[in-house]
Amino acid sequence: MGKVKLDISISLDGYVAGPNPSLEDPLGERGEELHEWIFGLDAWRQAHGHGEGERGADNDIVTENVASMGAVIMGRKMFSGGSGPWEDDPNAGGWWGDEPPFHVPVFVLTHHERPAETKGDTEITFVTEGVEAALAAAREAAGEKDVHVAGGAEAAQQLLARGDLDVLQIHIAPVLLGGGVRLFADGVTPKLELTRTVESPAVTHVWYRYAG
Amino acid sequence: MGKVKLDISISLDGYVAGPNPSLEDPLGERGEELHEWIFGLDAWRQAHGHGEGERGADNDIVTENVASMGAVIMGRKMFSGGSGPWEDDPNAGGWWGDEPPFHVPVFVLTHHERPAETKGDTEITFVTEGVEAALAAAREAAGEKDVHVAGGAEAAQQLLARGDLDVLQIHIAPVLLGGGVRLFADGVTPKLELTRTVESPAVTHVWYRYAG
Repeated sequence: MGKVKLDISISLDGYVAGPNPSLEDPLGERGEELHEWIFGLDAWRQAHGHGEGERGADNDIVTENVASMGAVIMGRKMFSGGSGPWEDDPNAGGWWGDEPPFHVPVFVLTHHERPAETKGDTEITFVTEGVEAALAAAREAAGEKDVHVAGGAEAAQQLLARGDLDVLQIHIAPVLLGGGVRLFADGVTPKLELTRTVESPAVTHVWYRYAG
Repeated sequence: MGKVKLDISISLDGYVAGPNPSLEDPLGERGEELHEWIFGLDAWRQAHGHGEGERGADNDIVTENVASMGAVIMGRKMFSGGSGPWEDDPNAGGWWGDEPPFHVPVFVLTHHERPAETKGDTEITFVTEGVEAALAAAREAAGEKDVHVAGGAEAAQQLLARGDLDVLQIHIAPVLLGGGVRLFADGVTPKLELTRTVESPAVTHVWYRYAG
């Protein structure tokens, strides 16, 4: 069985979204700066059908992730992708567009029912039964590969508190957002083991193993 | 002139002290786990007169810091070192003992006047005129060498907000404290540039240049 991996970018001051996030603007003020390291990379551009891009340490990590990823769990705000409330909008899915870059099954945690849909080669399932159900479905879909938890913070926090994240893969952007949505919830203090660090000029990649 | 460097250990969730810190327990609950990476190192043990210790990437960084450090600024809680209120206690200075490990002039930010004192070969000056005065005195004392800002968070935040920190050298411990004293204050968002990352199994060392 694969692992369950949190795969998320945070600011040096611990935020996964800047101040005032919303369904229309899930990353909040300046939140897109957390992800600037990824947009020009070859693996990211290829996954989005944008042609070639930069190679190097950052790209190697995205390539690894693409190879190991068997399913994705994300929260409702992340899926909404800036398209606002999407329960009644068949075209919702915002910035992911008609050809989402995942190419593996995606499970969206939500309180709002919506039929499963396929965009490009990405099958998207909306899970209203909570994080445990989403994880079970994602594990099943991923088979031997890993389940990537892409955020937001709420999904990550629930899984971390339950002890369901095997690996925390965190990309620390050299940015201070000064407010917003914190990745870690107060009072949740599992033991972690630092297993890997990769240096790049754009972002610091760190991996932790959940150790209880 | 040397640089002004923040040199501080934080938890992955952004805390420099755990819950419920006090003068008697400046690091708060589990806060000492932030510093576990340093206690066994050769450079740290030698500076404390404890004989030899471990060498490797972590030790190289402490050795660099010892070599470049011309003066230290710290807050009152950090100086108190667990000895509680110290204004009237000539023996205060807690865990630093009679032979503090700094071996360069130390400037303690405080609202409580106290005459300068020398312990071992460390001269300790208590600065009641605020962070600007402490920085001016520390720069003067450091000469061509660097001024290290050792914490706590309040001193670091004041200097960062003023634009006085040239370099942020942050040691990210693989620990979730789940609460306590955050290093970064909300609303303070200078631009940073990631300049260096060093991997070790114990802690992730990252350096940022203040860029405005």
